[in-house]
Amino acid sequence: MSETPVGIVGFSGYSGAELVSLLSKHPHVEPILLEHRDSGDRPRPLGHSGPRRLPCSPDSIRSAGLAAVFFATPPEVSMQLAGPMLDAGAKVIDLSGAFRLGTTENYQRWYKESHTQPELLKEAVYGLPEFCRSRVAVARLISNPGCYPTAANLALKPLIEAGAIVREFGIVCDAKSGVSGAGRKASLKTSFCEVTENFSVYSIFDHRHVPEVLRTSGLDESEFSFTAQLIPIHRGILETIYFRASEKIASADDLLAIYRGRYASEPAPEPFVRLYPPGQVPDLQAVAHTNFCDIGFKYDEKTRRAVVISAIDNLVKGAAGQAIQNMNLALGYPETAGLL
Amino acid sequence: MSETPVGIVGFSGYSGAELVSLLSKHPHVEPILLEHRDSGDRPRPLGHSGPRRLPCSPDSIRSAGLAAVFFATPPEVSMQLAGPMLDAGAKVIDLSGAFRLGTTENYQRWYKESHTQPELLKEAVYGLPEFCRSRVAVARLISNPGCYPTAANLALKPLIEAGAIVREFGIVCDAKSGVSGAGRKASLKTSFCEVTENFSVYSIFDHRHVPEVLRTSGLDESEFSFTAQLIPIHRGILETIYFRASEKIASADDLLAIYRGRYASEPAPEPFVRLYPPGQVPDLQAVAHTNFCDIGFKYDEKTRRAVVISAIDNLVKGAAGQAIQNMNLALGYPETAGLL
Amino acid sequence: MSETPVGIVGFSGYSGAELVSLLSKHPHVEPILLEHRDSGDRPRPLGHSGPRRLPCSPDSIRSAGLAAVFFATPPEVSMQLAGPMLDAGAKVIDLSGAFRLGTTENYQRWYKESHTQPELLKEAVYGLPEFCRSRVAVARLISNPGCYPTAANLALKPLIEAGAIVREFGIVCDAKSGVSGAGRKASLKTSFCEVTENFSVYSIFDHRHVPEVLRTSGLDESEFSFTAQLIPIHRGILETIYFRASEKIASADDLLAIYRGRYASEPAPEPFVRLYPPGQVPDLQAVAHTNFCDIGFKYDEKTRRAVVISAIDNLVKGAAGQAIQNMNLALGYPETAGLL
Amino acid sequence: MSETPVGIVGFSGYSGAELVSLLSKHPHVEPILLEHRDSGDRPRPLGHSGPRRLPCSPDSIRSAGLAAVFFATPPEVSMQLAGPMLDAGAKVIDLSGAFRLGTTENYQRWYKESHTQPELLKEAVYGLPEFCRSRVAVARLISNPGCYPTAANLALKPLIEAGAIVREFGIVCDAKSGVSGAGRKASLKTSFCEVTENFSVYSIFDHRHVPEVLRTSGLDESEFSFTAQLIPIHRGILETIYFRASEKIASADDLLAIYRGRYASEPAPEPFVRLYPPGQVPDLQAVAHTNFCDIGFKYDEKTRRAVVISAIDNLVKGAAGQAIQNMNLALGYPETAGLL
Repeated sequence: MSETPVGIVGFSGYSGAELVSLLSKHPHVEPILLEHRDSGDRPRPLGHSGPRRLPCSPDSIRSAGLAAVFFATPPEVSMQLAGPMLDAGAKVIDLSGAFRLGTTENYQRWYKESHTQPELLKEAVYGLPEFCRSRVAVARLISNPGCYPTAANLALKPLIEAGAIVREFGIVCDAKSGVSGAGRKASLKTSFCEVTENFSVYSIFDHRHVPEVLRTSGLDESEFSFTAQLIPIHRGILETIYFRASEKIASADDLLAIYRGRYASEPAPEPFVRLYPPGQVPDLQAVAHTNFCDIGFKYDEKTRRAVVISAIDNLVKGAAGQAIQNMNLALGYPETAGLL
Repeated sequence: MSETPVGIVGFSGYSGAELVSLLSKHPHVEPILLEHRDSGDRPRPLGHSGPRRLPCSPDSIRSAGLAAVFFATPPEVSMQLAGPMLDAGAKVIDLSGAFRLGTTENYQRWYKESHTQPELLKEAVYGLPEFCRSRVAVARLISNPGCYPTAANLALKPLIEAGAIVREFGIVCDAKSGVSGAGRKASLKTSFCEVTENFSVYSIFDHRHVPEVLRTSGLDESEFSFTAQLIPIHRGILETIYFRASEKIASADDLLAIYRGRYASEPAPEPFVRLYPPGQVPDLQAVAHTNFCDIGFKYDEKTRRAVVISAIDNLVKGAAGQAIQNMNLALGYPETAGLL
Repeated sequence: MSETPVGIVGFSGYSGAELVSLLSKHPHVEPILLEHRDSGDRPRPLGHSGPRRLPCSPDSIRSAGLAAVFFATPPEVSMQLAGPMLDAGAKVIDLSGAFRLGTTENYQRWYKESHTQPELLKEAVYGLPEFCRSRVAVARLISNPGCYPTAANLALKPLIEAGAIVREFGIVCDAKSGVSGAGRKASLKTSFCEVTENFSVYSIFDHRHVPEVLRTSGLDESEFSFTAQLIPIHRGILETIYFRASEKIASADDLLAIYRGRYASEPAPEPFVRLYPPGQVPDLQAVAHTNFCDIGFKYDEKTRRAVVISAIDNLVKGAAGQAIQNMNLALGYPETAGLL
Repeated sequence: MSETPVGIVGFSGYSGAELVSLLSKHPHVEPILLEHRDSGDRPRPLGHSGPRRLPCSPDSIRSAGLAAVFFATPPEVSMQLAGPMLDAGAKVIDLSGAFRLGTTENYQRWYKESHTQPELLKEAVYGLPEFCRSRVAVARLISNPGCYPTAANLALKPLIEAGAIVREFGIVCDAKSGVSGAGRKASLKTSFCEVTENFSVYSIFDHRHVPEVLRTSGLDESEFSFTAQLIPIHRGILETIYFRASEKIASADDLLAIYRGRYASEPAPEPFVRLYPPGQVPDLQAVAHTNFCDIGFKYDEKTRRAVVISAIDNLVKGAAGQAIQNMNLALGYPETAGLL
């Protein structure tokens, strides 16, 4: 059976390289590298040329018949190139923040620059499949969620919808990420000697991913305290989420029931969300190199304090894997194709 | 000038080795290794025999005239040997949890075993010099604080005393530690391949260090949510502390003023607490191999949400360094001797 | 199509877990966990039970119809259980050193204990597919090569056979391995704090893997200087191999021609050996999580000094991946099934 | 007693920061930061301003009366500024490669650019104290050795002088370094995700430090095979050195006797070289944060093959520590001042 070609812009970054690696094993598509200012090539074994390469242009999309194009690029590149690619007939799945925030005002506030494609921003569908599956299936332009919001929203949204949280006490999301979340570029901040044997806080309250959580979860900014921190590892995000449970939650089983109702109910349990028995929580090795979001929690009945741990691989469920999940939905393949 | 001999029991563990290393550079004392089930010796260069060694016994203490003995041992060893060492005339500085919790009931609850030395427990002085300096100076038995409580209490106690925190909203202390905090022993949980490229949660609500924070800060258990997590690094503790500020705190400067009043006021500023300008926070490299506790914070005036970062080297201010600070007080040396 | 069941003894170690992970994605077989003193289970998500489990016994083999059994166990376990498994009708692929050294004398010398199964030792086929493919295909008992010898023999054997090396000058093999090579067990030597920010030598001349290289390559002990060293990483082996080239080797292209003749010649190039252009060499990230052995080199024509770099993932080509490659040959599947 | 001021140019790099840190604890000198294109400042605690700062100019040297100036800068900066600093009356200790190679031709060959200060090059004294102590003491311009050559020369020079090595068989020096050896600057090659879980070779035969070894040891280029490799750690160099011993060396004790004769003989044993019993070798943790060069070895009498391990902290004995050792000699302080 012939494979459908799909393109990747920004294939030499960490998310882009993960896309290429995962798509190379996908049963239904063939990845094509769309060359656009890529750099940092590594030595290549003789005779191992890797995927096909084409110039990054609408003509390439048309002549090669690409069904979809992934952008693993800075938002300004996505804004500039998404339109022409859509016009050339490809679905676009954008891994940058360009199309996540709904309004130009929101984008301006958090990304500190003007949005140049307000029409596309309006059209874009936020691709968190667990909550937007049907809209993703018919979208032309899919905005792939940020890594931190993916872990936060999957952990919080079912609880918020069920009224399980006393919101006025505030929700704390203490988030930790591996270094690949910062992208593949020369920077003193991510250089080895600055990161190893270290742990550092790089954003309190004002991370660009905060508005994605607010928009999806319905929380108010004052209710959600988010801190982003750097772990000296390559990949992985773990979020430790603290809240006071409402009176509906008499026991840990009540929390579990909410999660199971949302993620584990027959006939169609979520394929990429895994729950743990109360009191047990995932670590990052549990999700490394997988598209799973693992959720565990501990609940103190007496004081109604809860801690939820949400863990993902930032390059997979937090980027490339979720993008492929979205592509599968948009192109009509089984949602888990190439991801299990 | 001749140096006063002091002993170390448990010198081959990480805290014990740090004690030996720091004491070797101390201007007024000479470290003596007191041999008691030590193991894991490393290859030793020819002619570099290290400090003197003696059997770990009251006779050694007497005949060598040790002024103080440090215990970097499990609590059951400290309980067993502290009394005889005191009887032999040495001051005792215990780095274990044996004498930290004030009552045998409290010890039983958190350490899951009976306390065998209730009299010593009653006598012991908790050695957080910034808050108990004068009592340490006259103590026979000093209980050196745990690593996590040191960072938490130094960050929280001034704010609590000043009424700066809305306690009923709860204080979250998301704590992260390097692996040396687990001690030097063979264990699958701290083996390299389980820890590297990982980040894991090992205690939610029920860590043994929680009651030390409650006892020192005056917080109630329901007001203090503590999670202990493992960073893939050797040394360092960083705590991210979240709370809602009371109406007294109109701005970041109000918080800073409280900290400065407590730690930076003339004529005797605290030598081992460093404050950062509002909005700036320490990382772990800032405190590595030092006896400093670095405190920085960010404050959102509009919503009165605050995040405080408290960072220490768990083996220095969180163990050996603070123990030497206590020794300096107890033996009448300048408090900073051997520590700057 | 139904999948053929195969068993894994020792599935909770690092090589065993890698086998389970790789076999779970294999198109033709189903992995069965054979329970035998396994330990160290990690928290498991709800509803994710993992592969089937059976007791580790000949009855299991027979009743479940296992076509092959992998031993990722210490050699004494392999020696004890291989015979009964063979008698029960399974092919056996042993990842330990039990059957690698050909003679009981050799085993006694390097493993410091008696070999209890001399008949099986005689029968065992050494499973380095690039050099023993046809014998592996008909073997009952396959001895999977050690990690270090795999990298060394693939780099050296073609050159030795071609007479490219001045053997009397000696070959230096400076070998570095990630920590997973030491197995998954509690040990102070592999505990995080002993390994991180460190690099250590653990065997000079006398590593158990030396005789495997001698036996396969035909080198004499005096001609091969081998040092084993520990890198603070999870997985990967890189060997830096030094020798003086013979007069046959006028240029780097002559060395490349030897390697290409052996590994890259049509119609059947080796699927798991990759060569680099002269002057370029692989690093460990190039082979991580793959079954490739990557070989690159630099040659100084004037002095005829050569340095060859050979890199593998010790858990894949150095253990589980090569074991599956051998299984594919022994059970008649395509050699690369489940491995690309 | 007042402290003598000394200056540091390039104080924000890793070697420069190590100089500042070590000099701050030195009993006889006060470090002054000489500002010259420094960058990458980290958050600084309130009231902790660090050492005095002056503009990097001859006037500063004169008016502040600096006795010595350290250059922890690229060679072109050292070449440009060393002369004016000497003219201003300071001794200069240069940590770059600018003045190490003796001739402009040698410099041109290995550094690929012209040397602009041939007179200074001629004047410069190579500061390996163990072999050039008396010349350092009277030098105006001291060229501090490279990190790799320090470890290599201390291990090899005594053996070569004693005729203990069969040179025509070749000496292999397989060298591994932590990442700080590459300096503190933004670079993709030293970014965390490229280095962690990796081990890579970055120079075979052609490293700039090779000629320093040849010049000091007297070896010919064809006799010395040097490979430089990157370990995922912050600091440390370990070199594994292979050679065939001459007939003079009947046993390991003969090798040890040579080393002891050179480094451990009374009345003035070398303070910074430590030897290990035959068969025992150092690892990097043994020398971290120290000015020691630790040397151990293993000898196979039957085949006369020897492996020597030489370990240093590249930022201390390989840079800042050795520079201070040289300063101590040049300014007449005890050689070990500030370094033990």
